[in-house]
Formats: sequence, C-alpha cells, structure tokens
Amino acid sequence: MNLKPRIHNVYAELKTRELDGLLISLPANITYLTGYLSRDSYLLFSDKKSVYFTDSRYITEAKAALSKEVSLKQINGSFFKCISQAITESGLGRVGFEERHLPYAEYEKIRSYLGSTAELVPTHGVVEEIRQFKDSDEIARIKSACRITRSALKFAQKNLAPGKKEIEVVGDLERFIRYHGGGDSAFEIIVAGGPNSALPHHIPGNRKLKSGEPVLIDIGVDIDGYKSDLTRVFFLGKINVRVRQVYDIVLSAQKKALGEIRPGIAAQRVDNAGRKFITDNGFGEFFGHSFGHGVGLEVHEEPHISPKSQEILKPGMVFTLEPAVYLPGEFGIRIEDMVEVRENGYRKL
Amino acid sequence: MNLKPRIHNVYAELKTRELDGLLISLPANITYLTGYLSRDSYLLFSDKKSVYFTDSRYITEAKAALSKEVSLKQINGSFFKCISQAITESGLGRVGFEERHLPYAEYEKIRSYLGSTAELVPTHGVVEEIRQFKDSDEIARIKSACRITRSALKFAQKNLAPGKKEIEVVGDLERFIRYHGGGDSAFEIIVAGGPNSALPHHIPGNRKLKSGEPVLIDIGVDIDGYKSDLTRVFFLGKINVRVRQVYDIVLSAQKKALGEIRPGIAAQRVDNAGRKFITDNGFGEFFGHSFGHGVGLEVHEEPHISPKSQEILKPGMVFTLEPAVYLPGEFGIRIEDMVEVRENGYRKL
Repeated sequence: MNLKPRIHNVYAELKTRELDGLLISLPANITYLTGYLSRDSYLLFSDKKSVYFTDSRYITEAKAALSKEVSLKQINGSFFKCISQAITESGLGRVGFEERHLPYAEYEKIRSYLGSTAELVPTHGVVEEIRQFKDSDEIARIKSACRITRSALKFAQKNLAPGKKEIEVVGDLERFIRYHGGGDSAFEIIVAGGPNSALPHHIPGNRKLKSGEPVLIDIGVDIDGYKSDLTRVFFLGKINVRVRQVYDIVLSAQKKALGEIRPGIAAQRVDNAGRKFITDNGFGEFFGHSFGHGVGLEVHEEPHISPKSQEILKPGMVFTLEPAVYLPGEFGIRIEDMVEVRENGYRKL
Repeated sequence: MNLKPRIHNVYAELKTRELDGLLISLPANITYLTGYLSRDSYLLFSDKKSVYFTDSRYITEAKAALSKEVSLKQINGSFFKCISQAITESGLGRVGFEERHLPYAEYEKIRSYLGSTAELVPTHGVVEEIRQFKDSDEIARIKSACRITRSALKFAQKNLAPGKKEIEVVGDLERFIRYHGGGDSAFEIIVAGGPNSALPHHIPGNRKLKSGEPVLIDIGVDIDGYKSDLTRVFFLGKINVRVRQVYDIVLSAQKKALGEIRPGIAAQRVDNAGRKFITDNGFGEFFGHSFGHGVGLEVHEEPHISPKSQEILKPGMVFTLEPAVYLPGEFGIRIEDMVEVRENGYRKL
C-alpha cells in the first residue's frame, strides 16, 4: 500500500488548520496512516518523525509491521506522560487531538503534563474526511470483502431451514467467513427471523426460524481492516402478499436512490429520492434511519447519506444504500448494497 | 436479576461523593444497573427517576426490556441537548460523568448546553468498584460461560491438526460457542501456533499449524453480557523438553499464586508470589504483563492483579490468573484460569 499520498494529504490538512501535529487515538485513523492494524495505541503524527506508542503486548508485532519512518515507543508507565514528553521533545506548538475519540480524562492528563509548553487543540474529521476517498488498494480490499460477503449470503440461503436457531446461523456464517479468506466478520452479524426482522439492530438469539417467514441477514466481512456491509432478506417457503409488496417497495426505493448517484450532487438527494418513494407508498413512518453511510476502515464512516446531508458526492466515496421498512410485531425488510462513486456515475461493489 | 441492591449501592456511593446524579456512558455499567444489554445509549442515574436515552434503532427492544422505574427517551436530534435538558428538568445540581469513557467533545457539548444550571463533575470507578463484587446471579452466568468455554477447549483439542489454519480453528470455535448456548465469544479468540504463541495478543491468520509445535488458545464466552476468559496451550504431537520445562514453570507459578488467594490480602501478593517463581527460574524478563484481571460484564475490569496493586481481596471478586512466558521467535506459554474469592479462600470457576 502506498501511504505517501495519505500522509501528504493529512500534512496539508494540518497546515490549513494551523496545527503542528495531531495526536491520533482512533484505531482506524492510525491504521490508515501506518498500514498496520493497530490496537491499544496512539500515534503522534507530525512532519517531524511520527511516534507510535504501544505497550509490551504488541511491541514485537508493531516493530515488524511499522515503517522505518515511524519511531516506536514502548510504554511502561503512563501513556499520557510519554505522549506529552514526545510532544515536548518534538518541539510541537499547536497539537490537534480527536475530540470525539479522546476521553475527557486522557485530555486532562496530557494537558496537565504539557503545562504551557504546547497547546492541545480539539479537532474532528481531520483524517476521516481524507479517508472517505478510497484509493485503488482500498477499493480492491473492499471488493474482496464484498465478494466473500456475497458468497456467505449464498451459503446462508442454501442452509436456512425451519427449526434452525438465529444464533446457529450466525455461527455458520462466522465460520464460513474464516474458511473463505475473510479475517473476521466486520460487525456482529444480524440474523433476524419473522417479527425480529422488524428490529433494525436485533441481537440474534435462540428463536427458531419458522416456515413461511422472512429472515433478515445483515453481514459484513473484514479484510486487513477494510469492511463490507450488505443486507438481504430471504424467505422460508412462500412469500405472503404483504411481505412481497413491502419488499418490492424497498427494492424500488433503492433503485430510485441509485438513479441519483453521480459526482457533484448532495448526499441528501440520494436519501430524499429513495425515502420519497417509501413515503409515497405509505410506509414513511416505518423507515427511521438514514439511507446509507460510508464504509471503509470503519463500518460507519463518512459520508452520511441522510435527509439533510449537504455533503457533495465525489469519485472514490464508498457507501451503503439501505432503505428499509420496519413493521413492529410483524416483520421488517432492509436491502443494503454498497456503491463506489465514479467519474461517470457509480458502480456496485 | 435483583437490581435493587446494585442501585442502592450506587446511590450510596454518589452520596459519599456529594453527587446528585451520574451520567453513565460505559455500556457495561448501564447493563449492570438496568439488566439490559445496552448499545448506543446513555443513562442519567439519580434518585429521581433515572432516564435512558437511545435512538430509533433500539427503541422497541429497550421499551420491552427496561423496568418501569426507568424512563425511556428516544433521541431524534442531539443526544447531548436531550441529556442536558433531562439534567435540568430533574433539578440535579452536581452530576458526575465517567471521565474515562466520555469523549472530550461530548463533555464540552453537555457542559455548554447546561451553562450554569448544573455542575458536571469528573468521576471514575463509581459503578466499576461496586461491580467487582459479584452476586449469585452474576456468578451463575460467569460459571455458565466458563463451562461452555471448557467444552469449546475440549472440542478444539480434539480438532486441532497439522495443516489447519489458525483462523479456521477460530471459525470452528466461534460456531461451537453459538451452537452450545453461548451468545458470542467474549473477545476475539486467539489461536496462535508455534512462534505466534510468543505474541501475547496475536491476531490469528493463515498460518497452518505444524506437527510438534505448541498451539495457544485464549478464548472466552459471553452469556447475557457476562464473560469468561481462559487460555490453554495444546501440543501437536510430542512436546519437546524446553517447551515442557517452560510449561511446568508457568503451571507451578499459577499454583503459587492460587496459594495466596484469600480475603484480606493485597492483590499484589498474588502477583508477586507467581511472578517470583517465574523470575527465580530465569524467565522473569519474558513475562511482561500483569498476573490477572477482573472479569464480569467486561473482559478486563476491577480488580487488577498486578505487581503494585494494593487492592485488598474480598469475597465476590472474580478474576483471572494468567502467568506466561513469551520467548520471541520461539514459542509462548500462557495458562489462564478464573477464580472467585470466597470467605474461606477461593474456588476455580
């Protein structure tokens, strides 16, 4: 992976914000800038030498994985004392931190160790805004993740049967992913049978699937930190008329939204086009969440495809389209696919 | 589950700290006080009516699961505006927040919405210190989790074979857990073959297990939020002399530590007793982490069994004992079990 353009873009963004460095605590952002699947670590990023902080459990792996351009510090005592020392030693004056990811107590500790030697500046989105535009290496990984996810869904479709527990289906799918090249599922797989499908974030349990009901499966795969996120609804036996009607409405809503995707338009237009179709068909109040979200090193990231999002779509953005109708106590339908915005429109991943 | 004693204890702790309420953002703490497996939510806990905040995705589940003594607020706009409004409406003056779990930006938002109507006070450990003493319901769940974990380890032992990939073993184990009554694994299962076992937190990959090498498996099960955490090392074929020697030292170190456990002694005595044995046998520098940690609604919680921990052991505490020796490039041995401190000593779980 070529990290240089990423590093360059973050430097440029820091310059715009008049910052000398950035203390990064969000693992996905650290992975983005180091190429290393980081855990329990911090990265002090600057145009001096960046410093990676971790503890004894990860030090052997980190040493092998990090590029020579990053210096590695093993923490024995306080992370926050070490971080503030490194800030002072690098002579950084204004250092940003990720205000949405750094706990209050950590901020306070670093600030008090620093005293007046440097200023800590709250920021958000510095790396995330850059991360939303995927390069070809990233697209390749996301596509691989999508490919394994589709295979897993095919496998599920063949193996669903009345009497099987939701949680057993989850177990089968987790195993499938790991036997077919995925590192892990990208999030807790949702398998929701019958009325459980009406709960957008149902936790799979011991309920047994029944003949004649819809089964919603929301699944993603993680490859080197890059994720996929797809949802399908299968039917055990014959589909009843009402379920079919709702299914067709949700599918058409997704098509309406797809029809809007191209560079230069606001994200809300995509949401509005799909949502309007659901509302016009009388189910607007049963679709409470936004239409989609970016996917990459995090399952939910920029851009947000929501009713009020003014974000302008640009090539390289990758996001989900997941219209849904949830009828409490009855059933729910969600259809979720991933797309990449391209110069000439989009492509499904 | 009887939540009343827990709620009572947290009230009492708040009184000691001269707080009128506590804004809880750590999911495990919310689960502890509501009995509900909470996600993407906040709990404003006070001796007025406590308020649970979540969004449309979880509202149906939360309504069904929460007791009538908690009022449920669905957030449509800003969580933080709603939280500050609820603080004001409840007439709370000094409200604690969890400084290690509330991001800086969320603290700042709530504080600015509140203005001078209430004071936000940084706290840590309010609920965690109470949570370290398990009641019989909690012990029962943890024991169930341990039981399934042991079965999974037996299953693994039978199924390990040269040529199998680490990640495939993980897939088999995940599936086993879900087919045998566990809700999920309690954390990412570690399967580390040969030299990978020398990495304390190895991420399982595509390396194939080889005949004659040790395979370290660190696995836990989640049941209703309660967790287990056990580690075993298996051998594919004959154990070589050096591996056997280190294995015996680690096992004996665990026995030394077990021998110290009883109410009234400091946690460091347990660590020191086991660690001294490893050091006396010449492997002290290859055991970098602490001897154990509490387990309950979190995999790592109070108490910490570390070289300097002054915490006094008391009945109801549940923690791991996990001595280890990691020889970089060669192999690692970790043996991890869970114990409960009892009036008359301890019992293995």
